[in-house]
Amino acid sequence: MSIILGIDPGSHITGFGVLRTQNSQKQRGSFNVEHVSHGVIMLPKNADLATRLAELSLGMEQILKKYKPQHVVIEKIFLGRNPDSAFKLGHARGVIMSLAARDGATVHEYATRVVKKGIAGNGSADKLQVQLMVQRILKLPKIEKIDASDALALALYYAQCVNVNESWDRIKSREVTL
Amino acid sequence: MSIILGIDPGSHITGFGVLRTQNSQKQRGSFNVEHVSHGVIMLPKNADLATRLAELSLGMEQILKKYKPQHVVIEKIFLGRNPDSAFKLGHARGVIMSLAARDGATVHEYATRVVKKGIAGNGSADKLQVQLMVQRILKLPKIEKIDASDALALALYYAQCVNVNESWDRIKSREVTL
Repeated sequence: MSIILGIDPGSHITGFGVLRTQNSQKQRGSFNVEHVSHGVIMLPKNADLATRLAELSLGMEQILKKYKPQHVVIEKIFLGRNPDSAFKLGHARGVIMSLAARDGATVHEYATRVVKKGIAGNGSADKLQVQLMVQRILKLPKIEKIDASDALALALYYAQCVNVNESWDRIKSREVTL
Repeated sequence: MSIILGIDPGSHITGFGVLRTQNSQKQRGSFNVEHVSHGVIMLPKNADLATRLAELSLGMEQILKKYKPQHVVIEKIFLGRNPDSAFKLGHARGVIMSLAARDGATVHEYATRVVKKGIAGNGSADKLQVQLMVQRILKLPKIEKIDASDALALALYYAQCVNVNESWDRIKSREVTL
């Protein structure tokens, strides 16, 4: 069993999503992922950057304490078209990554495009399409916040990647023992 | 009395410098600043970003615990000519700013140019000139690490600004009471 925490960092709203994965003993190789929780950390709008980051740090610490994830999956950011907002987001990422690593979790990064392609089948899918797929896969009713569904998508994509790799490892080891 | 911590953040080496300021009762308005400590937080070179940030977080926490600064002064970064390195530095800044604000310190930011002008009289002064001036003002022997002298320069610049403002406030209040 492992707990995966997905994080969609933001300067004002940070989404989080928690999943639990298990390898079913009866059906080896079957993909068993379970929704645990999701939500957002809201940061005070009119506060300065340091105060907002302190609130983010406190919120992230509570989430890590409550769910004890082995894996933290965070959105990879490129400077791209909006370097100023990417620069600000880097600060939030720093807070999240440092706390996750201090807690002993491994930190994984995926670009939004890759996650969208993995979850919704299309790297250019919009956030609502991703949200619908996340709801369908995890059998959830409407997820209120788009930041939370983005975070769940990150966790889900990581769970799928690990599952594919594990199945592949099993196939390879079977080939060797034949 | 107040404790000022200057921080020169880096992805591999983060410099810190601690100063104590006091307003002498005998000579009101005299600038009394005292060197407390300086040094660097070295981060593991070959580790991934999350691990390096976790080490930075632990180091920063120790410094805050030991010196209990009321004011943390950090280098302001602009995307400028090297946006990629600024983006990476943003992560380190996020770690530092969040911990300082969580500890109740106020966080101040100054651009390197402004600090260089304030300390060495020239916004384009090189790091060695700044180091020499910091040594002279604080009556210190050679500071080994340039990152530490940059951090001391930040703390010193803040102390000077506060001193100027306080003197100005006193002059203004005297004018009013006359």
